[in-house]
Amino acid sequence: MTSTKVGLALLGLGRIGQVHLKIILSSERTNLLWVMEENTKIAEMVMKKHKMLGKIRVASSDQFDDILLDPSVQGIFICTPTDTHTILVRKALAARKAVFCEKPLSEELADIEACYNDAEKYAGMLFCAFNRHFDFGIRSMYEKARSGGLGKIYMVKTTFRDTPLWMGDPSLSQTFLSHDVDLLCWFAGALPDTVVVQATANIKEVAGKCDVDTVGILMRFPCGMLGILDFCKYSPYGYDVRLEVSGSEGMEITNAKPVSLVKTYTQSGQSTGQIYASFPDRFLQAYTSEQEHFLDVIQGKAELEVTRVFPERAAKVIDAVKESYKTGQVITLKK
Amino acid sequence: MTSTKVGLALLGLGRIGQVHLKIILSSERTNLLWVMEENTKIAEMVMKKHKMLGKIRVASSDQFDDILLDPSVQGIFICTPTDTHTILVRKALAARKAVFCEKPLSEELADIEACYNDAEKYAGMLFCAFNRHFDFGIRSMYEKARSGGLGKIYMVKTTFRDTPLWMGDPSLSQTFLSHDVDLLCWFAGALPDTVVVQATANIKEVAGKCDVDTVGILMRFPCGMLGILDFCKYSPYGYDVRLEVSGSEGMEITNAKPVSLVKTYTQSGQSTGQIYASFPDRFLQAYTSEQEHFLDVIQGKAELEVTRVFPERAAKVIDAVKESYKTGQVITLKK
Amino acid sequence: MTSTKVGLALLGLGRIGQVHLKIILSSERTNLLWVMEENTKIAEMVMKKHKMLGKIRVASSDQFDDILLDPSVQGIFICTPTDTHTILVRKALAARKAVFCEKPLSEELADIEACYNDAEKYAGMLFCAFNRHFDFGIRSMYEKARSGGLGKIYMVKTTFRDTPLWMGDPSLSQTFLSHDVDLLCWFAGALPDTVVVQATANIKEVAGKCDVDTVGILMRFPCGMLGILDFCKYSPYGYDVRLEVSGSEGMEITNAKPVSLVKTYTQSGQSTGQIYASFPDRFLQAYTSEQEHFLDVIQGKAELEVTRVFPERAAKVIDAVKESYKTGQVITLKK
Amino acid sequence: MTSTKVGLALLGLGRIGQVHLKIILSSERTNLLWVMEENTKIAEMVMKKHKMLGKIRVASSDQFDDILLDPSVQGIFICTPTDTHTILVRKALAARKAVFCEKPLSEELADIEACYNDAEKYAGMLFCAFNRHFDFGIRSMYEKARSGGLGKIYMVKTTFRDTPLWMGDPSLSQTFLSHDVDLLCWFAGALPDTVVVQATANIKEVAGKCDVDTVGILMRFPCGMLGILDFCKYSPYGYDVRLEVSGSEGMEITNAKPVSLVKTYTQSGQSTGQIYASFPDRFLQAYTSEQEHFLDVIQGKAELEVTRVFPERAAKVIDAVKESYKTGQVITLKK
Repeated sequence: MTSTKVGLALLGLGRIGQVHLKIILSSERTNLLWVMEENTKIAEMVMKKHKMLGKIRVASSDQFDDILLDPSVQGIFICTPTDTHTILVRKALAARKAVFCEKPLSEELADIEACYNDAEKYAGMLFCAFNRHFDFGIRSMYEKARSGGLGKIYMVKTTFRDTPLWMGDPSLSQTFLSHDVDLLCWFAGALPDTVVVQATANIKEVAGKCDVDTVGILMRFPCGMLGILDFCKYSPYGYDVRLEVSGSEGMEITNAKPVSLVKTYTQSGQSTGQIYASFPDRFLQAYTSEQEHFLDVIQGKAELEVTRVFPERAAKVIDAVKESYKTGQVITLKK
Repeated sequence: MTSTKVGLALLGLGRIGQVHLKIILSSERTNLLWVMEENTKIAEMVMKKHKMLGKIRVASSDQFDDILLDPSVQGIFICTPTDTHTILVRKALAARKAVFCEKPLSEELADIEACYNDAEKYAGMLFCAFNRHFDFGIRSMYEKARSGGLGKIYMVKTTFRDTPLWMGDPSLSQTFLSHDVDLLCWFAGALPDTVVVQATANIKEVAGKCDVDTVGILMRFPCGMLGILDFCKYSPYGYDVRLEVSGSEGMEITNAKPVSLVKTYTQSGQSTGQIYASFPDRFLQAYTSEQEHFLDVIQGKAELEVTRVFPERAAKVIDAVKESYKTGQVITLKK
Repeated sequence: MTSTKVGLALLGLGRIGQVHLKIILSSERTNLLWVMEENTKIAEMVMKKHKMLGKIRVASSDQFDDILLDPSVQGIFICTPTDTHTILVRKALAARKAVFCEKPLSEELADIEACYNDAEKYAGMLFCAFNRHFDFGIRSMYEKARSGGLGKIYMVKTTFRDTPLWMGDPSLSQTFLSHDVDLLCWFAGALPDTVVVQATANIKEVAGKCDVDTVGILMRFPCGMLGILDFCKYSPYGYDVRLEVSGSEGMEITNAKPVSLVKTYTQSGQSTGQIYASFPDRFLQAYTSEQEHFLDVIQGKAELEVTRVFPERAAKVIDAVKESYKTGQVITLKK
Repeated sequence: MTSTKVGLALLGLGRIGQVHLKIILSSERTNLLWVMEENTKIAEMVMKKHKMLGKIRVASSDQFDDILLDPSVQGIFICTPTDTHTILVRKALAARKAVFCEKPLSEELADIEACYNDAEKYAGMLFCAFNRHFDFGIRSMYEKARSGGLGKIYMVKTTFRDTPLWMGDPSLSQTFLSHDVDLLCWFAGALPDTVVVQATANIKEVAGKCDVDTVGILMRFPCGMLGILDFCKYSPYGYDVRLEVSGSEGMEITNAKPVSLVKTYTQSGQSTGQIYASFPDRFLQAYTSEQEHFLDVIQGKAELEVTRVFPERAAKVIDAVKESYKTGQVITLKK
């Protein structure tokens, strides 16, 4: 019954686009019909690498309408640059396609709301790719915390240190902060009452652009939970994503992922290899699982988990972070 | 250039056959043309699961000649029960197919030698699937040890505790021991001078079959390296494969693989989830890499790494283990 | 040469007083001549336990002058309640005794300054017991960080979760915060430019006293280092003190101390016992080393390391924390 | 009541003698009256270091009778070279002193038996210092294993790698093997049925003395438990003592003890400092606890735990090890 395969188009073949491509191609549930990529050289190289040259239609952005008009396309993955997301999302929704869009949907809250309003208007589906909800470890922590397994939640802490140094967006942006902000709000089940940021620039290149690279954020939530987020724009030792949840009955931590199981003992001490250097290695399982979820929702096997409340909440908090940085003060959020 | 894809047939859809099937299907370098499986129900179920019903020819064993006569088939994966390996290997080699055969090639050394003699006669390729050579961690340990990174090697220890309890072969057989025996000989680069086993039965079901389940083996190698192998037919806590290498400059260990990165702290202590419960989880990367190697050799991109010396050496040692158990004594191996 | 032993008096036999007592008694460099304790029952019990009944003079507070008049007493350990520290310190200094005083010297900055002014006036020595400076792990991290071993320092984070729940002081006090605040300033080598706190009450008993139990503090330092402190008044899983330093070349972390080296593997996972439940277990080595340092300074073998700048700086920051909590805003510190 | 202090004499101020000295001096239950040491320079230096010069009588071996005649001496610690143990033990027992003797009592089983026969004859107490019985971790593993907490015991493994290289005794001697052999028998609660050793010489200095440095031993116990012991005379990475117990319900491991809690992350990987380099660091708690036990037995507060069965059993097994090495065969032990 090949008819049960979900027809797909993938827009954008950058780093994250190629991650999604690989998972789509190895899935038995999907039928990738189109890719759209402005850089035709990259498109050709990527198609060759996957032995898909001539098997998947490769479009440029001015052929987007052809994709939308293809009735075999049920779902569209949007992995293009952030500033193109909103328009692509809204067109795809209008064409009655299910939409998987990389975070952030937009830097602007109004745009995000507009996208979701369209999703409601067309009774369509818009999935914002907060993949950490689908990481088995983080998800198990969420379920344990929310079901009372750690008692009353006191504090949730996230750490994010990125590598390599990417100067494409300022640190205090959704690009860098939305995963961690979303996690804190997800665990609290609410928007925070207050938000405050303190940040400095320690890297010359960053300071030269009047940006910051070292960031601490505190959030006080209505339930009494305190959220603490720390972020570094650059990590010398690998891609470091951590989450810690503590409550009246216990604590759980998930740390960065080591590459190897081998441990070495010498006169100079014990060593255990690096941690993974990038997001596709750390979160491969989560990317795979979020795709499964997207397909499940399309096929009516599951309800959408990452509803509009998540990206809208994250956007509100990050707007408050920006305001806190500008004013140097604690921001109280309007409800 | 789809012509560069390697045409394959896969014999046997049991546990390990399905592991190889999945990797073959997700590879961009392969074209799976046939599967052969006696149990037609299982064959149909597996093909359905992978959406390959009607796309791959499904044969029973009396159609094996049709597979051999298919000129598109370049390589054959043999994952059938051990007692069928020799005849299938030899027929495939005679038909000028490259052969990937699950270990052990046979319980009998003479059969293994006959297979390799045929491989030489037909100038063919026979790859015995000692996948641990391709596990990144074990391989890095081998390279470090052999290049002198740990100084003079004193001792290599392997631990293997299997789960679930599988009664299909006796413990003192190639099925259970050949991976670990091969590793010890691989690190020593030689056959041992002496071998001795001590073994007991602690599990009622095993004792009832006059088998043993708890095994310790010592091997003394010409270079001075001591090999220590311990084996349990059943592990209550997961699939536990370990390797330890120590020398005059340091030690390296690789332990069982944990499922999760999450660590929990409560009043009763710290806990970190289970280790993986089975070989496909522990060695997925190694299975994938050994397939790549097999394809590389077919395509002339690499020399065969697991040559006849490895399975023949393991067979000789395991014969000595059996003799040691029967006589209760230390066995000196003939060179 | 028993004359080289340092004659000592110890004031206060509460929890921390008994920790110091035990170390003093086991040292070969000390001669404990007096203890002063209001609760005569406790004093007697403690002396009996250590087989020192009749060997060390036990005084009540109205006999403090006798201690001060004893010319054999060179140094005085002050482990009495915080509100008695200032007067005892100043009297001891006036009597030309070397003073070891548990932190905090006082909740009031003015008192601390007065103590140190006296120390200067009498050319005496006042050692504020910031024991973490003497913990081998923390000290090695400090030395590595300050010598450039981690490159430019981006961020230092401290975690402190106490057990058992102690209601004797509010959370936003020197009693609870001075160790961690001192560590952050020590690593930065400066007073922060800004301080902000966010805090909540999650424990009924604490909320009932209008106190907070869950605290996050951000500090921005002139060098670009960001300090992040998190504190919980109660930890269900043991005494959790952590320190993390990250910079342009690497990161170092020291975590809570596990009680046991034993690791257990069962069907339900891996576990490794509790972490230590209290400060004397976690910091025994640091308490011992800080006493050695105090004796070294008395005997002219070392310069005082914890000079007045440390407790005065911590007091200034904690005053800013209190103000931030009261006003709900970010506080800029006057230099 | 100083009369409750136990009067002691300590014979031998070598490495282990000084470890016991320090613990005795810091105990509140002991009164050290004599030390006996042939090397008067060392004796003086050690007494000075502990500020005990003139406070404890220092004897040479020809004054041993004076110690035995001193009615205040209740217990004698014997930490002299192994070949002096038997005669000192027997004289001390005859003088009605409680005896604490470092392992081994003797290399000869007959001597060990003679010592214990004397202990019975005089109704005295002889404690052979198998300190690992008193290590909290090992003891907890023993209690868990023996009470069924790991189900039926399949296998117990010990690893011992010594540092620095000590050439004073051959590897296949009680000096090196008795702790580990005793542990295996203790867990099994019995003498093994069979013993076999395989050993090689990898260190030139050792080979030059016709000794071995790399040793593997298998023991089959009546209950079905398999014992595996591995030993290296020299470890380049620290003092490595490990114990592993596995059974039908789970497994427990205790590994070498790390010096520091600090973990470092850099571009080249994660590292965590050395493990401890010597036995006093690894087993300080065990040495302290075994002294407490010795005092408890003297004062009638406990029954002797390490009875004659333990050193006698270890001696029998090590005799079998020596015979196995000489004959190259598996040895069946007489019961």
